[in-house]
Amino acid sequence: MARLMLRIDLDGKGSIGPGKVRLLELIDEHGSIRRAGSTLKMSYARAWGLVHDLNETFGKPVVNAAPGGKHGGGATLTPLGRAVIDAYRTAERRAERAARPQIQGLVRRAK
Amino acid sequence: MARLMLRIDLDGKGSIGPGKVRLLELIDEHGSIRRAGSTLKMSYARAWGLVHDLNETFGKPVVNAAPGGKHGGGATLTPLGRAVIDAYRTAERRAERAARPQIQGLVRRAK
Repeated sequence: MARLMLRIDLDGKGSIGPGKVRLLELIDEHGSIRRAGSTLKMSYARAWGLVHDLNETFGKPVVNAAPGGKHGGGATLTPLGRAVIDAYRTAERRAERAARPQIQGLVRRAK
Repeated sequence: MARLMLRIDLDGKGSIGPGKVRLLELIDEHGSIRRAGSTLKMSYARAWGLVHDLNETFGKPVVNAAPGGKHGGGATLTPLGRAVIDAYRTAERRAERAARPQIQGLVRRAK
């Protein structure tokens, strides 16, 4: 099935796309930035960097990360983090529905 | 102003995003793959590669390129090339309108 991917640029304050949103969803699922990142074959530094970018974009944390210990400290989404996921997934669903005729037209032309 | 960028994945037959569409528009404007590419700071090989990808996706050319000479051969869009631009830009407009509440909500939360 054809898929639409969105990137939303926020007035020079950063951007939100499928990679960052999927990472947040996996942090919620795994309770760990490291494990979420490794599911996406990302280094810990890269995963942390994306979380940091989101924190900077919104001026407050999207993830609460407890200090790591032997087994890591655990990470949970903040309400802001959940709101970002919800807004993005809703935008994606609405955009996909609105653009469906054009997407299907392109699929029909593709060999 | 916040901007939505779309990438449309066509059932494993390739993808269409802002880079390829902008390149087609510039080929139309300049009549030259090389000049269109250089406007986007792309090498000729890279620009040609993107045109080639689109030709492969659709199984026929999106650009008619005359053989190059001293001044290059000139390039024009085919009707298919124009249809691809139209479908993408229409999809973008419709998606942006449909997702506007979510995009504006994210902009408001961004610091």
